[in-house]
Amino acid sequence: MKKIAIVGASGYSGEELVRLLLRHPQVELAAVTSRQYAGQTVAQVFPRMAGMPAASQLRFTESNPDLISRSAEIVFLALPHGVAAEYAIPLLNNGLTVIDLSADFRLKSAAVYREFYGHDHPDPTLLEQSVYGLPEIHRAAIRKARLIASPGCYPTSILLPVVPLLRAGLIQPDAIIADSLSGVSGAGKKAELDYLFVECNESVRPYGLPKHRHLSEIEEQLSLAAGRKIIIQFSPHLIPVNRGILSTIYLAPAADLRTEADIDAFSRRVTQCYAGAYGGEPFVRLLQGKALPDTKNVVGTNMLEFAWRLDPRTGRLLVVSAEDNLLKGASGQAVQSMNILCGFEETTGLLG
Amino acid sequence: MKKIAIVGASGYSGEELVRLLLRHPQVELAAVTSRQYAGQTVAQVFPRMAGMPAASQLRFTESNPDLISRSAEIVFLALPHGVAAEYAIPLLNNGLTVIDLSADFRLKSAAVYREFYGHDHPDPTLLEQSVYGLPEIHRAAIRKARLIASPGCYPTSILLPVVPLLRAGLIQPDAIIADSLSGVSGAGKKAELDYLFVECNESVRPYGLPKHRHLSEIEEQLSLAAGRKIIIQFSPHLIPVNRGILSTIYLAPAADLRTEADIDAFSRRVTQCYAGAYGGEPFVRLLQGKALPDTKNVVGTNMLEFAWRLDPRTGRLLVVSAEDNLLKGASGQAVQSMNILCGFEETTGLLG
Amino acid sequence: MKKIAIVGASGYSGEELVRLLLRHPQVELAAVTSRQYAGQTVAQVFPRMAGMPAASQLRFTESNPDLISRSAEIVFLALPHGVAAEYAIPLLNNGLTVIDLSADFRLKSAAVYREFYGHDHPDPTLLEQSVYGLPEIHRAAIRKARLIASPGCYPTSILLPVVPLLRAGLIQPDAIIADSLSGVSGAGKKAELDYLFVECNESVRPYGLPKHRHLSEIEEQLSLAAGRKIIIQFSPHLIPVNRGILSTIYLAPAADLRTEADIDAFSRRVTQCYAGAYGGEPFVRLLQGKALPDTKNVVGTNMLEFAWRLDPRTGRLLVVSAEDNLLKGASGQAVQSMNILCGFEETTGLLG
Amino acid sequence: MKKIAIVGASGYSGEELVRLLLRHPQVELAAVTSRQYAGQTVAQVFPRMAGMPAASQLRFTESNPDLISRSAEIVFLALPHGVAAEYAIPLLNNGLTVIDLSADFRLKSAAVYREFYGHDHPDPTLLEQSVYGLPEIHRAAIRKARLIASPGCYPTSILLPVVPLLRAGLIQPDAIIADSLSGVSGAGKKAELDYLFVECNESVRPYGLPKHRHLSEIEEQLSLAAGRKIIIQFSPHLIPVNRGILSTIYLAPAADLRTEADIDAFSRRVTQCYAGAYGGEPFVRLLQGKALPDTKNVVGTNMLEFAWRLDPRTGRLLVVSAEDNLLKGASGQAVQSMNILCGFEETTGLLG
Repeated sequence: MKKIAIVGASGYSGEELVRLLLRHPQVELAAVTSRQYAGQTVAQVFPRMAGMPAASQLRFTESNPDLISRSAEIVFLALPHGVAAEYAIPLLNNGLTVIDLSADFRLKSAAVYREFYGHDHPDPTLLEQSVYGLPEIHRAAIRKARLIASPGCYPTSILLPVVPLLRAGLIQPDAIIADSLSGVSGAGKKAELDYLFVECNESVRPYGLPKHRHLSEIEEQLSLAAGRKIIIQFSPHLIPVNRGILSTIYLAPAADLRTEADIDAFSRRVTQCYAGAYGGEPFVRLLQGKALPDTKNVVGTNMLEFAWRLDPRTGRLLVVSAEDNLLKGASGQAVQSMNILCGFEETTGLLG
Repeated sequence: MKKIAIVGASGYSGEELVRLLLRHPQVELAAVTSRQYAGQTVAQVFPRMAGMPAASQLRFTESNPDLISRSAEIVFLALPHGVAAEYAIPLLNNGLTVIDLSADFRLKSAAVYREFYGHDHPDPTLLEQSVYGLPEIHRAAIRKARLIASPGCYPTSILLPVVPLLRAGLIQPDAIIADSLSGVSGAGKKAELDYLFVECNESVRPYGLPKHRHLSEIEEQLSLAAGRKIIIQFSPHLIPVNRGILSTIYLAPAADLRTEADIDAFSRRVTQCYAGAYGGEPFVRLLQGKALPDTKNVVGTNMLEFAWRLDPRTGRLLVVSAEDNLLKGASGQAVQSMNILCGFEETTGLLG
Repeated sequence: MKKIAIVGASGYSGEELVRLLLRHPQVELAAVTSRQYAGQTVAQVFPRMAGMPAASQLRFTESNPDLISRSAEIVFLALPHGVAAEYAIPLLNNGLTVIDLSADFRLKSAAVYREFYGHDHPDPTLLEQSVYGLPEIHRAAIRKARLIASPGCYPTSILLPVVPLLRAGLIQPDAIIADSLSGVSGAGKKAELDYLFVECNESVRPYGLPKHRHLSEIEEQLSLAAGRKIIIQFSPHLIPVNRGILSTIYLAPAADLRTEADIDAFSRRVTQCYAGAYGGEPFVRLLQGKALPDTKNVVGTNMLEFAWRLDPRTGRLLVVSAEDNLLKGASGQAVQSMNILCGFEETTGLLG
Repeated sequence: MKKIAIVGASGYSGEELVRLLLRHPQVELAAVTSRQYAGQTVAQVFPRMAGMPAASQLRFTESNPDLISRSAEIVFLALPHGVAAEYAIPLLNNGLTVIDLSADFRLKSAAVYREFYGHDHPDPTLLEQSVYGLPEIHRAAIRKARLIASPGCYPTSILLPVVPLLRAGLIQPDAIIADSLSGVSGAGKKAELDYLFVECNESVRPYGLPKHRHLSEIEEQLSLAAGRKIIIQFSPHLIPVNRGILSTIYLAPAADLRTEADIDAFSRRVTQCYAGAYGGEPFVRLLQGKALPDTKNVVGTNMLEFAWRLDPRTGRLLVVSAEDNLLKGASGQAVQSMNILCGFEETTGLLG
């Protein structure tokens, strides 16, 4: 049984992490911390877990790095961006493995970090050491990682469908548009007017156009896959669901598609590309036949499902993906990375 | 591994049953039937289970009682009211154990059945044999049952908080009012205008006033607990959530509560009554302190949570309960009964 | 054209007031105030009014009582409870008419005010002068009022169906139970975790049990109608809709209902009672036949609709009412009172 | 007072038409027809209009063209696609003016009609006579029209922001992508499983990819504006709101934007283009500053609001628009056209 701690487990992804790790058969949740909830049991703070026996035993504590270093081997950080980096440093120095759910270690380039976050990174050398925790893309590196930067919810929904196409040279790298819809839990558990029920219900709205912070990690990962600098169009929207992200992605094939034969040939290449990339993946599902993604089919699971269509009228390749922003888009994926680096079966605690 | 079949698994509670039994470690789901979906895999019909490996193997079949009798030991019926009774008879004759989720075997009295359902019961002797599958009330009988009538969602939310008070003689049996709010999945998966998104969203409405069919089983069970005939007031309402039932129950204490000392004494008796009834129950939770039930804390679990308040101004006892109508109110409870009659740990497959 | 000011027009009922008065053909909205929005136009603060030409002209100002006294004859106060009373005093001294949407002037009894609000009223003599602005009950007094305390949303939904029955002696005054469901806008536009989308969506919960503040005005008005002190049971719940209140009210007839003839006779008396009370009312609608209230039929209107059922099994009288909490439950009703005291047609600006 | 009839007024846009025309000060609603509701009053069929006195008088009738021709001068058709065309012919022959809300007369080309609808148009000459009822684009023609094809909800949200740019030559005609999100009322009042509350709530999904029927009228109108054949990418999605459409549109400027000066110059051209097109329009609103469209700000109004952003990183022009699919996207726009052709003030009955 690996000993685990979760630091800052008071928000929505923190809650999911606690739930996943409490029921995980190969780990022991040794500590959960939160300044706000210190002293209370998990069952008191998250009543929906009250039925799990351990939730009544386990109590939130203050987030003392030294105490945590003594009680845990692996630490999940569910802290606000900026705070996580400061917190990770002593843990790493104490020899622990850190899986960070914030954006603090997701970029390789300190310059891009500065451009998008408006200040210098507190420890740029850690950017080099960290592994971007997208198992389907970086599994080998995750296996040996000591610092994992678990991806954001939007990036996961865009990278998984696009990276294989880029690697295979099937699409033009300069013409990527991702139009994404997110449930309100993606905004976090913050007492702000914008996220009140009455302001979100019966409402749909874009935000952060045209330069959302998550662009930086999406573009960096796409650039890695393409072997060249990529800039994309990304438009996030808020929709009135608790959980779920749907991304509709517009791509330009890197091939002339004038005849039906062209189209058939290209379709076969896409089919093969995805079969090769995701044929054996337990948490990526390519929909068959006429099925199109629907967030309700993935919410509550660690699955990303997607479908693609080649439009013979426009010559464009459309890909639509859906995931649970708190699971495959955050905590489920972080546990998947943990399973990999611990040598557990990758799906442990993440099915059903 | 017990061999299990689910007949009529195409609606919302059928889907939950499939999910629960697919991940249950001590049973093998040998057959799922549905006229509509015969030939398709579980993963095709219920895409949210696509991540569970067995869901891609298991295929829906037609509901042939003989075939089922050969492949399963225990059969769950998730059929419409009326159809279930017809279907159960050959299975019982073949020696199988039947757990029925419809209302067909919930009443003991064939006369009450006729009054509320408008026609005679097809086999009144089965009404005598069947056990009302509310584990916290009838656990001993469930252990030996061959035909379990799993309770309705409204009845569960009302019976669990009220039965112990009635048994202890703490409340007046003639003054029970239950005001219940149900999510739309309670209406089933039926293509009717009334249950369209646009008709339910931004809407709240009562229905079936004042004599809803579920009254019959609530009153029969309450009467059993009180040892005398009980008639209650019951008002169901439809609210715009997918899942969840909240019942607010108004009770008259069977004691004069004139002084603070009276109130304190009565409060202690209620506390003791519930501690005795549910102190060790894994799926009934009495909230402490100022906490009040909230459906979001029980949806996705097999828990019924409740709280009570004694109002010194009116002398009434208020009890509020919350449950997931598809789990503790339907499929979770049916699996709980199965665990009991199979001799499994009662919480198997129902936590986390 | 009457000159009108709205003070504190930044919340949900303030917004509705602005909308109603902007389109009202017989008033001129001379001032709208809000510390937070001073300097901005109505169209900027409330974008959904941007199509109304006046909304781009009218600008929010600071709430200076002297300035307001010079520019307006009638002032609506949409301020928090407690603040409104302080603010009304100088306006009344300056000879203006005040229509207050807070609870500050709704009670006649300073003692009850202290009991429910925890502090003394700043000017108890104003409690005597104020008129409770429920037009169907107090129309004559409203006509001559200079200070109107516009009723709360819960009280309106309960008083309108119950007062006529009490006045007619048709129900037992000691056995009134009101179970109410409110949309989230009833909680106001406050940045609190409890009212976040994710906390309210897919959730139903009671709150403030068993002694909610609004009880005081409900009981005082019912006591007035009955000619004796009345205490009721009142249970508010929060449901995931933006707008709408549904109240299900349980009553005990003041008559023995043993025979069908008793029941028929009592039913006729209820029918007559309501026909007499509301036959000519433009904003109270008794549903006919099998129809039951549904908030979606009243949201966006100033109508309260209700239905009643006499339950022959329990002998109880059930009444269910529905209204828009921001219109008939707040701002629409306040404008209705204004129409009355100004001598306008009562429905002016409130239909369609 | 113009005499008006509405044929087929039983769905969601029919209901909105009835409401708008009942309160319109310059028309008399002489007849509303519906096979299903014949004999019932408007107040019975649409309880939310019960407060409007006329709604209790006006009764639904059968849809007899000859009777309607005698009682009305202008007829709105709110019939299913296909049925409307058959129904319009006798009315037009009788000299009436027809405003059709279906897709039956929206195309000019009978060949495109056949391609998208799978059968021949019943009367292609009417396609030539009909006027596409988008007032901001075709106001002059609407003034003299006898047959108006009122636009679909998706087309309105896309055409209004894009047509001025195309006419001004500001964008490349071959690179238009429209990603649209629609509330569920857009699917009509149909008892189908896909539109049940439980299937839509907590769900987002695309549909009809990549060749939705509405593409045909969008492309035809864009082609008219550009003076050449245009093919676009269009992806509709269903989101869990009752009403509202949001379209995010990706455009490629027809100019090199390499320097900041290029970008500034192009931005000025866009600003001027929209100011010229919509500066004086009462129902099109270009948002200023940082504001972005939100459906909640337009639902319940006849307004289309939009904003644009030039992305210096990608060189793309983004436009986002929002409207109420049942008002500016259907019935409100149809009434706007009626106002124009009757010579009424264009905003009559459509503000506030």
